[in-house]
Amino acid sequence: MNKERLAAFTDAVLAIIMTILVLELEKPAQVTLAGLWALRANFFAYTLSFFWLGLMWTTHHSNWHLVKKVTNHTVMYSLLMLFIASLFPYTTSLVATNFYNPTAQVFYGIVVLGVSFSNMAISHSLKAVNPTVHFGWLYGLPNRSVLLDIVVKLIGLLLALTVYPPAMVYAILVATFIVGFASWQNKSKA
Amino acid sequence: MNKERLAAFTDAVLAIIMTILVLELEKPAQVTLAGLWALRANFFAYTLSFFWLGLMWTTHHSNWHLVKKVTNHTVMYSLLMLFIASLFPYTTSLVATNFYNPTAQVFYGIVVLGVSFSNMAISHSLKAVNPTVHFGWLYGLPNRSVLLDIVVKLIGLLLALTVYPPAMVYAILVATFIVGFASWQNKSKA
Amino acid sequence: MNKERLAAFTDAVLAIIMTILVLELEKPAQVTLAGLWALRANFFAYTLSFFWLGLMWTTHHSNWHLVKKVTNHTVMYSLLMLFIASLFPYTTSLVATNFYNPTAQVFYGIVVLGVSFSNMAISHSLKAVNPTVHFGWLYGLPNRSVLLDIVVKLIGLLLALTVYPPAMVYAILVATFIVGFASWQNKSKA
Amino acid sequence: MNKERLAAFTDAVLAIIMTILVLELEKPAQVTLAGLWALRANFFAYTLSFFWLGLMWTTHHSNWHLVKKVTNHTVMYSLLMLFIASLFPYTTSLVATNFYNPTAQVFYGIVVLGVSFSNMAISHSLKAVNPTVHFGWLYGLPNRSVLLDIVVKLIGLLLALTVYPPAMVYAILVATFIVGFASWQNKSKA
Repeated sequence: MNKERLAAFTDAVLAIIMTILVLELEKPAQVTLAGLWALRANFFAYTLSFFWLGLMWTTHHSNWHLVKKVTNHTVMYSLLMLFIASLFPYTTSLVATNFYNPTAQVFYGIVVLGVSFSNMAISHSLKAVNPTVHFGWLYGLPNRSVLLDIVVKLIGLLLALTVYPPAMVYAILVATFIVGFASWQNKSKA
Repeated sequence: MNKERLAAFTDAVLAIIMTILVLELEKPAQVTLAGLWALRANFFAYTLSFFWLGLMWTTHHSNWHLVKKVTNHTVMYSLLMLFIASLFPYTTSLVATNFYNPTAQVFYGIVVLGVSFSNMAISHSLKAVNPTVHFGWLYGLPNRSVLLDIVVKLIGLLLALTVYPPAMVYAILVATFIVGFASWQNKSKA
Repeated sequence: MNKERLAAFTDAVLAIIMTILVLELEKPAQVTLAGLWALRANFFAYTLSFFWLGLMWTTHHSNWHLVKKVTNHTVMYSLLMLFIASLFPYTTSLVATNFYNPTAQVFYGIVVLGVSFSNMAISHSLKAVNPTVHFGWLYGLPNRSVLLDIVVKLIGLLLALTVYPPAMVYAILVATFIVGFASWQNKSKA
Repeated sequence: MNKERLAAFTDAVLAIIMTILVLELEKPAQVTLAGLWALRANFFAYTLSFFWLGLMWTTHHSNWHLVKKVTNHTVMYSLLMLFIASLFPYTTSLVATNFYNPTAQVFYGIVVLGVSFSNMAISHSLKAVNPTVHFGWLYGLPNRSVLLDIVVKLIGLLLALTVYPPAMVYAILVATFIVGFASWQNKSKA
């Protein structure tokens, strides 16, 4: 497998996922400000999913130009990552219409965590055959940002399961800023 | 971030948005000329959205081949632009079925203006690191066309909010011809 | 506008149109052979649209590798062609569920003819600036095949308007074989 | 036809098919673990279709970098393959909601077999003009894995038609592991 072909396929699938999210966005019962406000959970979930995927896409390929080789494992983990990510329109819609439902929130969170762990597996597989790339746990991000990201999401998951279901999406929102900040600094150095 | 990868991703998302617009296009209650005529607001909104996005795409990359570098800011503004643009199928559908509704028209107009301003931010970020490209406010377009485009849209927005909701889409139609003409002349020179 | 970027965008939009056709394909009321047979007009329209677009895509780029330059006109006609083609999922669905309805059939036919004429305009714009490419009316196809294709479709249109609505899709089926055969021979020579 | 353009088009269509599968995935009646469990046939069919297509995509291009030439036949068989593959969202949805229905299962199986046979035809057309590539019946896979894959699917088809409809999807699941294993070993050698 050629690295360019894999990257192009990954980008295509992510672009499609991000763009078809809108097909699940609910229409207002009445087209007024109040009608749109009633859908605020929809717009919030939509926005969060779009930018989470967008940030993931930019992080996914930091230092990618330094990658010389991809392995069977890279391809397998990439398919796994894309499969989990392909559930975003589904879980986004679930969470949008069931904002206080723990099952919806936890399903959403598991998809997000699943994509994160798949990306760490991709990163690991690249590191093995590209010794000069200096990948950490998640591409070029500092390990402590990645750890913080996972911890925040796991706390959100725990709170969603026990006391407050929306804690899941708010934790992902916070984690997005953490990774976004680390990603920004990382690329500024590059 | 490689400039080619960013451009390919942008193009992919725009291509998908333009193509899934049709999935929101209403079917006629009766398949007759009268039945299709009853959907004229749908066809008008669909056509306007398709060509506005198409024109934006052609403008987006005028002089792009001269760009040598993209920055973190370019990537961030591009994601913002794509996010706002991704709402097109949603607002097009809203405006099509609520043509005389000010909320629908203003929402549609804000999305269009949001994409325009994001593009100006992208253009600004490119200018900073590519001093030889001669970008103005909006890529290679003359500043006075860009100003006229924004003014026309703002007048449409004002009229939509006060006396006549469809003024919004008609203003965008007029603005499309202004930018289309400027873009045509600009590329003829290049 | 770079010729590669235009071709990639065109290919992306056509790929999306061909693939989302299936989202409009009706599900059988009963999942039995009889239930599927009751949808035969749906499957026929779906198949015709898919291969017509597929053939158009292969024809679209015959001799494209010889093209050195595209003009403003090429871009404008390409956007027009993609706009008309983007209506395929809509008209295919209309014709599938209203197979004996003249309005549905004529709308379908006009979209097909509109794409054909836009492609002839694209071809013409390329010929003007690439004198060495030997384009005819429609890329590398012999003019008499193109003429026959248009005549067959116009006869179908006439019959659909007067005596037998499905004449339209059958004419397009026949025309597809004519162009397909010419395209095949043309590429075998190349 | 340029081999890169054909591969890019094929990849785009496959990426879109895999990603729009989710649009047909049923939402739970109640958002609880029990509600999701009630949709287990949906999730199973979705997962099977996604990875079957993903594996097909990775297999499709093994040794593709060695291909120098594609013929008219390659293009024709590729369009046929994409057409059959484009039915995946439709048959996946049918099988998901009619898991014990022989018509749904056989239709799903015929689509899978149709894609396999089209790929063998593509592989054959490439072999004819690229004598140095060492393609077997299905790209670089060993012929005995391909034979086993077809035999398992045909047994599944037979059982689905006679005693147990879901035998079809289970046979495809088993066949996926057979081809996946062969594909993995094949690429490890390469």
